[in-house]
Amino acid sequence: MAVSDKTSRHVTVKDVAEAANVALSSASRVLTDHPNVSEGMRQRVLAAAERLGYEPDLVARTLRTGNSRTLGFLVADLDNPISSSFIRGAEDSARARGYGLLLTNSEGDPAHDAENLQLFLRRRVDAIILLTSDSGSEVEGVLESSTVPAVVLDRDLPSGSSASSVFFDHANGMHEATGHLLERGHRQVAFVGGPEELRPVSDRLAGYVRAFQDHDLLVDRSLISTGSLRPAFGRTEARRLLESDTPPTALIVGGNQLLNGVLEAIHDLDLRVGEDLALVSCDDVDLTRLYQPSISSVVRDVYKSGQIAAELAIEQLTEDDVPVRTVLLPTWFVARDSTAVMPTARL
Amino acid sequence: MAVSDKTSRHVTVKDVAEAANVALSSASRVLTDHPNVSEGMRQRVLAAAERLGYEPDLVARTLRTGNSRTLGFLVADLDNPISSSFIRGAEDSARARGYGLLLTNSEGDPAHDAENLQLFLRRRVDAIILLTSDSGSEVEGVLESSTVPAVVLDRDLPSGSSASSVFFDHANGMHEATGHLLERGHRQVAFVGGPEELRPVSDRLAGYVRAFQDHDLLVDRSLISTGSLRPAFGRTEARRLLESDTPPTALIVGGNQLLNGVLEAIHDLDLRVGEDLALVSCDDVDLTRLYQPSISSVVRDVYKSGQIAAELAIEQLTEDDVPVRTVLLPTWFVARDSTAVMPTARL
Repeated sequence: MAVSDKTSRHVTVKDVAEAANVALSSASRVLTDHPNVSEGMRQRVLAAAERLGYEPDLVARTLRTGNSRTLGFLVADLDNPISSSFIRGAEDSARARGYGLLLTNSEGDPAHDAENLQLFLRRRVDAIILLTSDSGSEVEGVLESSTVPAVVLDRDLPSGSSASSVFFDHANGMHEATGHLLERGHRQVAFVGGPEELRPVSDRLAGYVRAFQDHDLLVDRSLISTGSLRPAFGRTEARRLLESDTPPTALIVGGNQLLNGVLEAIHDLDLRVGEDLALVSCDDVDLTRLYQPSISSVVRDVYKSGQIAAELAIEQLTEDDVPVRTVLLPTWFVARDSTAVMPTARL
Repeated sequence: MAVSDKTSRHVTVKDVAEAANVALSSASRVLTDHPNVSEGMRQRVLAAAERLGYEPDLVARTLRTGNSRTLGFLVADLDNPISSSFIRGAEDSARARGYGLLLTNSEGDPAHDAENLQLFLRRRVDAIILLTSDSGSEVEGVLESSTVPAVVLDRDLPSGSSASSVFFDHANGMHEATGHLLERGHRQVAFVGGPEELRPVSDRLAGYVRAFQDHDLLVDRSLISTGSLRPAFGRTEARRLLESDTPPTALIVGGNQLLNGVLEAIHDLDLRVGEDLALVSCDDVDLTRLYQPSISSVVRDVYKSGQIAAELAIEQLTEDDVPVRTVLLPTWFVARDSTAVMPTARL
C-alpha cells in the first residue's frame, strides 16, 4: 500500500517501517538519528526509506508534530522580574496557536540548564525555547543530540547549533543612556555589569564606549566593573566606586537584579539618588517605575521577544523548509528623575 | 504465571489484566478509578483482582511512580514576584529527591488554571502542586478525575478533593500589623485587599478586625475595600480612600501586587509614605525593602512552603498509606520606616 500510494501522498515513517519489516519505533529511531540503533537496523531502514522516496525532514517533522502540541520554555531565573514578561509573550503566542507551554526554572545556575533541557526532551515537548543562565555552554551537548527545533533568547548560540534566535540591540539603548549623561556634563560615569562573555553585557559595554568616542572623550577603565549580574556584586562594586577618591557622578547599572544591590550600597552610604548621583538601570521593573525618584532605564519589549520566540518555534513545527531565523529587537533609553541631577551636585 | 508467583511477589496490574482476559489499559483504568469504564468491565477486573489478592493502593502507586519522576507545579501568576520563591522551594526539594519540576503559568486567569492542569495530566507528571489564581473552582472538575496526588498551596481545597495542603496563618501577621498601628494611635486604618472568597484575603481581614476588637474599637466598614489583587484596583481604591473627607492616617495593603497601584495613587496625590500616611504591605519584595522609606510588611516563609509542598507530593509517591496532610505556616509583622509616622502628621 505504501508503494502504490507513493505518488499521491507523502511517505510516512510507518510506510518505511512496513517496507523494512521493522517496528515503527525502530524506524523512527533511525530516521531521527537516535544514537541507540544498531548498524544493521540503520542500513535496513535507510534502504527502505530510499526505495520509497521518503523525505527525511518531513518525516522528522511529522514525528515531532505528532501529538504533543507542547513547547518547553527553559527559563534561566524566575527570580528575575522580567522573566515573567518573556513567558507571558511566549504563552500568549503559543496559546493562540493551540500549543501549551511548559516551563522550567534553572535558578540562575548554568548546571541546571542542562538538566532542565534533558527533562524537556524526556517529556517529549515539540520544540524548546531557551533563556539560559550563561552563554549556553552547559546545554551545548544536550542541544546537539536533540532533534526538536530550538529558539534561543538573548544569548549567543552554542557553537554548531542550528537554532533560531531572538536578540536585543543592547548597545543602542546604552549608547543613548551614556550620551544623555555626557551631554548633561557628567564625565565620571561608572558602569557596573555582568560577565563580559554574555552577549547582552558586551553589547551594553560597547554602547557605553561608543558614546564616549562620539563625544571625543576617553573611557576611564577604572570606572568599569563587570563580572556578575547578582545583587551582591552590584552592592560591593557600587560601594567601592562611590567610596573612591574620585567617585562617579553618574552610575549605569547593566542589569535589573544588580540594581537591588546598587540601591543598597547607595542607602548604606546615605546618598540620595537624583541628588548626590545620577542613576541609570536596565529594564522596566516595579522598582524603576515606583522608586522615588523614579529611575531612568534602558528598556526593551521583553513581552514581544517571547511572542516572537514562540512563533519561530511553531513555524519550524508547522511549515515546510523554514530556514533558521535571527530576529533583532531594539532597546532604548527612558529618562526619568534619577538622571535629572547635574554633575556638580556632589562635588 | 501470575497465580503461581502470587505468594512470592506483589501482584501487578498486568497479572490482573491477564487473569481477567482484558487489555492492560482497561485493567489500569478500573484499578485507578478512571471514570471512562463500563460497569461490566469494572466487575470483571475487580473480580480478577480480588481472586489474585492484589493490593489496590500499591498498584495505583506503582502505576504512578512508573518512570516519570516529574512534579508539575501549576503557578497562578509568574508576574507576582513571590511566585519564584514558591518555585525555588519546591524545586530544591524536588531536585534533592531526584525529581524534575515542570511549571505552567496561568497569567492570573482562573480559566488557564484548568487548561494547564490538563496539560500536566496529558504529559503524565507524577504529582501536581497547585497555586491557583482563585479559590480553585475552575480546576475542581479536572482534579476530581485525576489519579495523581495533588498538593494545594494557600488556597481552600476544591470541595470533595483529597489533596494535601499548605496554608499560611495570614490572620496572625495582619493582627500584629493592625495592632501596631492602633497602639501608635491610628484610628482611621484603611484596608485594601483581594476578593474575600480567597482564603488569604478573608484570613487577613479577620486578623484586622480582631485587632480592633482587642482594642475595644469599632471597625469602620467604609475603610475596608476588597475585590481584587490587581494593581489597578489598589490605585483606584487607595485614591478614593485618600481623597475622602476623612482620609485614613494608615493604609494596609493586603497583597504585594496591590501595593504597586497603591504607591501610584500616593504619588498621584503628592503624598509621602511615612510622613503623610503610614503604610503596611504584605510579603517581602524588592519594592518593600528598597523603597525609600522602606515599607513595613506582613511576611512569611514562602520558600519553605514550596519545599513542604514538594515534600508532601513526593511522600504520597514514595511511601505507603500516607494520609493526606495539612500544614499551617506562620506569618508575622516586620515594622519598617513606613509605619514610623504618627496619626497627627497629616491632620
